[in-house]
Amino acid sequence: MTPDFQFKIVKQKLGAARVETMDFLAGEEPLEIRVKGKSVAVTMRTPGNDEELACGFLLSEGILHERSDVIEIGYCAAAREEATHNILNVFLAPAVAVDFEKLTRNVFASSSCGMCGKASIESVHQHFPPIKSAANISAEVLCRLPDLLRGGQDAFTQSGGLHAAGIFDLDGNLLVVREDVGRHNALDKVIGWGYLNRKLPFDQHVLMVSGRASFEIMQKALAAGIPIIAAVSAPSSLAVDFARESNQTLAGFLRGNTFNIYSAPERIR
Amino acid sequence: MTPDFQFKIVKQKLGAARVETMDFLAGEEPLEIRVKGKSVAVTMRTPGNDEELACGFLLSEGILHERSDVIEIGYCAAAREEATHNILNVFLAPAVAVDFEKLTRNVFASSSCGMCGKASIESVHQHFPPIKSAANISAEVLCRLPDLLRGGQDAFTQSGGLHAAGIFDLDGNLLVVREDVGRHNALDKVIGWGYLNRKLPFDQHVLMVSGRASFEIMQKALAAGIPIIAAVSAPSSLAVDFARESNQTLAGFLRGNTFNIYSAPERIR
Repeated sequence: MTPDFQFKIVKQKLGAARVETMDFLAGEEPLEIRVKGKSVAVTMRTPGNDEELACGFLLSEGILHERSDVIEIGYCAAAREEATHNILNVFLAPAVAVDFEKLTRNVFASSSCGMCGKASIESVHQHFPPIKSAANISAEVLCRLPDLLRGGQDAFTQSGGLHAAGIFDLDGNLLVVREDVGRHNALDKVIGWGYLNRKLPFDQHVLMVSGRASFEIMQKALAAGIPIIAAVSAPSSLAVDFARESNQTLAGFLRGNTFNIYSAPERIR
Repeated sequence: MTPDFQFKIVKQKLGAARVETMDFLAGEEPLEIRVKGKSVAVTMRTPGNDEELACGFLLSEGILHERSDVIEIGYCAAAREEATHNILNVFLAPAVAVDFEKLTRNVFASSSCGMCGKASIESVHQHFPPIKSAANISAEVLCRLPDLLRGGQDAFTQSGGLHAAGIFDLDGNLLVVREDVGRHNALDKVIGWGYLNRKLPFDQHVLMVSGRASFEIMQKALAAGIPIIAAVSAPSSLAVDFARESNQTLAGFLRGNTFNIYSAPERIR
């Protein structure tokens, strides 16, 4: 963590005197992502691995496909000094088409087809078809993932309660873990890592997230081709609907040696 | 919970046979908010208290001020049947001005002033000045709030790990609690409850949230005039900066009889 995120705070215990102390806090700053000079997204994120965040975001929005689609990524030098690291330009290959209108409006707003979970799922499937991977994982390995994810996290950020996302292979080896104040940002960062390092699709891999599984998590996992998603806590109703329609294996409530399977149990041995 | 959110799932324990069972999951569906016939927001939320969610959102965006600003709220009858309850029309009094361009783009995207936490705070202060309330609360009452919040939650949703937001008076009496898959939605709902029931501003009140405190939480609390914000977990760096600039008392890490104070400790006796 940078010194910027160290604060003087007051610790209090009932019946005892107040104590002033220094404390580290999870960083939160806005990041603006620009494509072809236009702002396409602003997200409140924990600074760090911003190139990965931008690539993961653009990939799950259906803009990026091949690694060669991105020529260069750089912070905006023209911004005010303190903001220099909060605006990121992604320079795309000339042939990459960008539908700015679609990208800057809300992805799920579709006035013609109504507004429902089913329509949201169909809209994602136009870009990303259901999973075909026959990858599978043993239940024993799956049960070890929460501890392995925590082991890959920064000691500070564990206590601060950041969201974490990790990519494992089918033997439980951790490839990459990223943490962020935003659940979706942590996932964008691990997907962006895969994109930048030519590791995509993650079709022989498991995604483990530290909290709950929402629609957005499942959508981004599908964009990265991930067949198996595991969450420490419960999924939402729409996450389960999405997983079933997308042939994704979704496990949740991983606690000790027990878990629930919400979709495609055949990938868990 | 409605029966829609009941799912057939598989429970597994290592070394034991798989068991099929029915499970309730937290609902997640898109909600589109329309003002003067135009879509201004789409959020993935837990269905229920949607009128509150819409009002809380529009209030914290600076659109709503007086209770009389809203004439009527109703689901869109013209939408496809399954989507009927996912599009909400908010009918405003004719005199209420709406800057659609500002409302539908990202609030923090401000190309002229750079992109940084400080600019984000200043942008909010243009609509909502810092807190003037001299309200204060005893440390003893503050320490009881996490349990009181959990006591106000639905037994199901506690296990499902939904985000909860509650408004208490200075003696620790719970006025309202709302839960949602989205942290900001739970807060929009309690603020919208206050708006619809003419209880705003919450200037002699405490907001308690179940998880962390982010910039967005502090911003919405300021819009509702809340002087004291308490969080079960840690705040982010920008939440603390925002609280200090806005004269909000921010307490976090409420665990048993201990807590941290990050801003304006004088409101805690």
